[in-house]
Amino acid sequence: MDRLSLHDALFSTYVIAASLMILKGVAMSWLTVIRMMQVKGGYRSPEDLKKTPLNPAPDPRQLLPDERVERIRRIQMNDLENLPYFLVAGFLYVLTQPPLAIAQMLLYGYVVSRLLHFAAYLTGQIHEIRATLWTVGSLILIFMTAHALLAALRA
Amino acid sequence: MDRLSLHDALFSTYVIAASLMILKGVAMSWLTVIRMMQVKGGYRSPEDLKKTPLNPAPDPRQLLPDERVERIRRIQMNDLENLPYFLVAGFLYVLTQPPLAIAQMLLYGYVVSRLLHFAAYLTGQIHEIRATLWTVGSLILIFMTAHALLAALRA
Amino acid sequence: MDRLSLHDALFSTYVIAASLMILKGVAMSWLTVIRMMQVKGGYRSPEDLKKTPLNPAPDPRQLLPDERVERIRRIQMNDLENLPYFLVAGFLYVLTQPPLAIAQMLLYGYVVSRLLHFAAYLTGQIHEIRATLWTVGSLILIFMTAHALLAALRA
Repeated sequence: MDRLSLHDALFSTYVIAASLMILKGVAMSWLTVIRMMQVKGGYRSPEDLKKTPLNPAPDPRQLLPDERVERIRRIQMNDLENLPYFLVAGFLYVLTQPPLAIAQMLLYGYVVSRLLHFAAYLTGQIHEIRATLWTVGSLILIFMTAHALLAALRA
Repeated sequence: MDRLSLHDALFSTYVIAASLMILKGVAMSWLTVIRMMQVKGGYRSPEDLKKTPLNPAPDPRQLLPDERVERIRRIQMNDLENLPYFLVAGFLYVLTQPPLAIAQMLLYGYVVSRLLHFAAYLTGQIHEIRATLWTVGSLILIFMTAHALLAALRA
Repeated sequence: MDRLSLHDALFSTYVIAASLMILKGVAMSWLTVIRMMQVKGGYRSPEDLKKTPLNPAPDPRQLLPDERVERIRRIQMNDLENLPYFLVAGFLYVLTQPPLAIAQMLLYGYVVSRLLHFAAYLTGQIHEIRATLWTVGSLILIFMTAHALLAALRA
């Protein structure tokens, strides 16, 4: 049996969830760029104040934090605190050969929780909503990791 | 031979070390939450100043950095600068089929170095102690990565 | 066939690219340390102002941001926003069994784009150069991830 075949339903579930999360994570970089271009600011490097085709009228205020940009940076930071761990934990979890239905629920449930977390954060919902969605994802992550740990300790 | 079996001693060593590091990394998020609740501050988003059941008496000072929270954020940042690389480097390293005893020493040694680093950082030990513990982990990480690189170049 | 053998040309290509990127990422931590020692500042923790052998004459200004150190931190942050996703995306991509020549072009192309991005960022080149190099890497990352996603959805 080839556990890393895309024809293996468990591994394929992981690849779909992991790919979606990577694309989501990378999208935050692009969204940061888009917002910096929209507000023409929120830059971080002194050299970004040089006069160039994309910045024809530099202004020192362009280096000040801009909330529209900072919000995306906070969302991206939250991704970095979660997604890399998920990408490995999900892989270890499917290698323990869990039941497919449970794996799909956890992996796709994680993806949905993160997309909803993004929507709540982007639109500035109250902390309770954001925190609840984050908690769902974090508990799934902890469950998958603990499952892999116990499986390895028992083997 | 199935290299990704939990019954394979090398891979199982990796899974145990990786799982422990993921749980450690995720714990930093929870510790940040706990400290923010304790100090009722250290928040970062403007919407966290809205009056809600968890924040019945909002105050603009809640958005100021709080050292008890910031310390955990720095520890978490240090994790993000190290653990994702370790999670992949450890995987590549065990795939080179190193001697089990050496793999256990390196992988578990890394885990121990990071847990001690956490203890030293949390309790505000002098920089020399923190730096020494970080260095041990970083050298293990570099060794495992260089080993995988050389093995792939030689193959 | 053992897809995770270092004798497999596709997997070996991934291991080489991934190892180089991990070493590059870890090098940023060391470079931060080197610059902090050079400028004797750019520290972040209150305890770093304690008098120790490595810091015989502490000064509160040592906790202020120093641009020579901050530049490396920004480069490192940019790595954290990209490399962990690449390390997983590259793995998933080679598991889809793409043509070797294309895989080599994408994986090694990514490595080269990141090394050039580092050189441009370190030497403070204008934003357009840095952005172009980042874009090349990010598009490779998105392509590999989308390829793995579609392959898993089709399988």
